[in-house]
Amino acid sequence: MGKGKIAVQVAHASVTAAEETRKRRPEWWKAWINEGQRKIVVKVNSESELDDLREDSEALGLVAMIIHDSGLTQVEPGTATCVGIGPAPAELVDKITGNLTLL
Amino acid sequence: MGKGKIAVQVAHASVTAAEETRKRRPEWWKAWINEGQRKIVVKVNSESELDDLREDSEALGLVAMIIHDSGLTQVEPGTATCVGIGPAPAELVDKITGNLTLL
Repeated sequence: MGKGKIAVQVAHASVTAAEETRKRRPEWWKAWINEGQRKIVVKVNSESELDDLREDSEALGLVAMIIHDSGLTQVEPGTATCVGIGPAPAELVDKITGNLTLL
Repeated sequence: MGKGKIAVQVAHASVTAAEETRKRRPEWWKAWINEGQRKIVVKVNSESELDDLREDSEALGLVAMIIHDSGLTQVEPGTATCVGIGPAPAELVDKITGNLTLL
């Protein structure tokens, strides 16, 4: 994916995960907004890794939203492009993503 | 900026503009969420163009939120990196960004 398309996928994940967290864990959402809504983008090598991250996140009680692309350009329709995790306390997010490499 | 940093800036703009629109124009926000929260990333050549886009957007009643980077890496502290416009009806957004080039 080109950098513009990557940015759109990450933004989809950010808005979707933030909105879900606003409903399910409003105290986490509010703290994140008030602290400048920190975001980190890391990379994986496969769609199945996205699923694994989602499962690990949910096991810790974190919101994890997989984004599927409509596939009009660059990727096949329905491809999982990324997963939005959190917002949540940093020590919880780090348990999931702390060993992954920055994009 | 590298592609990961660009993605973070765009995500900041998306979450910030969406949240502001949720408060100020909830009917626009709800329609956008229900229709799959379409996003388009376009590019400009200078920080002053970001200011111009913000002014034009606000003149049409659209939310426009400029994102400033903390500048720990890659850019000077306080640099305006992007502006999040909308969500709003497509015909209004197109008046602002319709002539700009996709990132």
